[in-house]
Amino acid sequence: MTTETSRRTEAPAPEHRHDAFDHDYVHGYSDTEARRLGDQADTLAELLHAGTAYPAGSRVLEAGCGVGAQTVHLLAASPGVRLTAADLSAESLAQARARVAAQAPAADVSWHHGDLHRLPFPDGSFDHVFLCFVLEHLPDPAAGLAALRRALRPGGTITVIEGDHGSAFFHPESPAARRTVDHLVRLQARAGGDGLLGRRLHPLLTAAGFAEVAVRPRTVYADDARPALVEGFTRRTFVAMVESVRAEALAAGLTTPAAFDRGIAELRRAAEPGGTFHYTFFKAVAVRP
Amino acid sequence: MTTETSRRTEAPAPEHRHDAFDHDYVHGYSDTEARRLGDQADTLAELLHAGTAYPAGSRVLEAGCGVGAQTVHLLAASPGVRLTAADLSAESLAQARARVAAQAPAADVSWHHGDLHRLPFPDGSFDHVFLCFVLEHLPDPAAGLAALRRALRPGGTITVIEGDHGSAFFHPESPAARRTVDHLVRLQARAGGDGLLGRRLHPLLTAAGFAEVAVRPRTVYADDARPALVEGFTRRTFVAMVESVRAEALAAGLTTPAAFDRGIAELRRAAEPGGTFHYTFFKAVAVRP
Repeated sequence: MTTETSRRTEAPAPEHRHDAFDHDYVHGYSDTEARRLGDQADTLAELLHAGTAYPAGSRVLEAGCGVGAQTVHLLAASPGVRLTAADLSAESLAQARARVAAQAPAADVSWHHGDLHRLPFPDGSFDHVFLCFVLEHLPDPAAGLAALRRALRPGGTITVIEGDHGSAFFHPESPAARRTVDHLVRLQARAGGDGLLGRRLHPLLTAAGFAEVAVRPRTVYADDARPALVEGFTRRTFVAMVESVRAEALAAGLTTPAAFDRGIAELRRAAEPGGTFHYTFFKAVAVRP
Repeated sequence: MTTETSRRTEAPAPEHRHDAFDHDYVHGYSDTEARRLGDQADTLAELLHAGTAYPAGSRVLEAGCGVGAQTVHLLAASPGVRLTAADLSAESLAQARARVAAQAPAADVSWHHGDLHRLPFPDGSFDHVFLCFVLEHLPDPAAGLAALRRALRPGGTITVIEGDHGSAFFHPESPAARRTVDHLVRLQARAGGDGLLGRRLHPLLTAAGFAEVAVRPRTVYADDARPALVEGFTRRTFVAMVESVRAEALAAGLTTPAAFDRGIAELRRAAEPGGTFHYTFFKAVAVRP
């Protein structure tokens, strides 16, 4: 669900390449950022990966593996798969490789440096395709899905996990905080993505030619009874993600430093005693006919 | 989650009485409206009532039973309880009584005509209290909860179900539709209620002196794969509820006929092929210490 993850892992369609890559709100390849993505993935692993377990020997493609934050959880749930992990960024792939070597040293993983729109594998090469927080950054997600459909054998499945920033609401309610979240959505749209993609998964998969499309919400709700989730999700994942676009939002003239900082301060109250926070991820499974 | 249900079932605090009761967006006591509430309750019964089953012989209070739309589901899940169903409206109580007579003729139910803030029962009279779509209409929901806490024996539980209209999002996204939903929230606030109450359940129950407060989201998500939910919830429950405040919104000067109707038309697209709709209810259980 981060804007950073996927912007660096998947290429937009060529006509949008300039917009998407010259934008400076991608917070880059820092160690801090990679650690944040790992923390986020660990906090959400059970919620997002539950129900996804591929049989040993299955040929699985993870499209847009990024720094491997989800890859290690996929491998933990499906030991024995033959995984191909693909990413557009060589640097991210190297980090993913190191992460997998440390956490799943026995896993059978091939690393592919390339664009999911132009995969070099013959049609029908995979039994299953998995992608998480990738579509939200593609200018034409249906085209990306169609490319992945071709990589699947008939009867093979695709599993897609996406967030939807419009699902975020919180107590105390705050128009300033809400506007700050909207800046993130607007910046992502300017970069050719869609921070509200989760709600579109069903029509997108249908349009891309998949069958038996089943989409389920996976909701994160954190209040004082769940301090680990307040810290791991509300504060360190969601607020941190919104906060990370500060420079970008200011550069784009969407807000002022005072207004942005006030929005973040009010958003942070959702992670203080008496606060609550809600966010919905969507997980879809569909079949190549 | 309807503005109609609870406005007629629970009194606001005296100082707000004028605002709450002179407002004409309560669509009254029509048969159509009672049927709509029943349909809504039936569509959502499994989602909302799952996990609530009281032992036979338990003394249970349903506060704000309205026309009995939830009462029959409560009785179906907990046969053998000794239920007291309370409501501020004699007319609603009569409808609830008829509904229970038809659907649960053997149930042990006492009907109480009165205000939940001033219950005549001795402290500790009940093992369990249940209320659904009631707090959202109280000017001081913590005070209402405190009154209900006193009616419970120590160790007794309260179960509270509320919606949160800020949880509604949909595809296709539409600012006009979103503004129309916002009118509903604003009108409810003017009447002394809070259409965004669901997110506040944890802090409210805590403030009212309950212990072991556990709140869980109960999410409705409808897309083309769930036509019954699209019809029963998106169209007949949510869109119908928003549409029902048209006259009120116009009278309050919040919108124009054209703008309101456009918002409803765009909201309705969420129930057409390719559309999706998301809404979160919250269900809380807590204990009187």
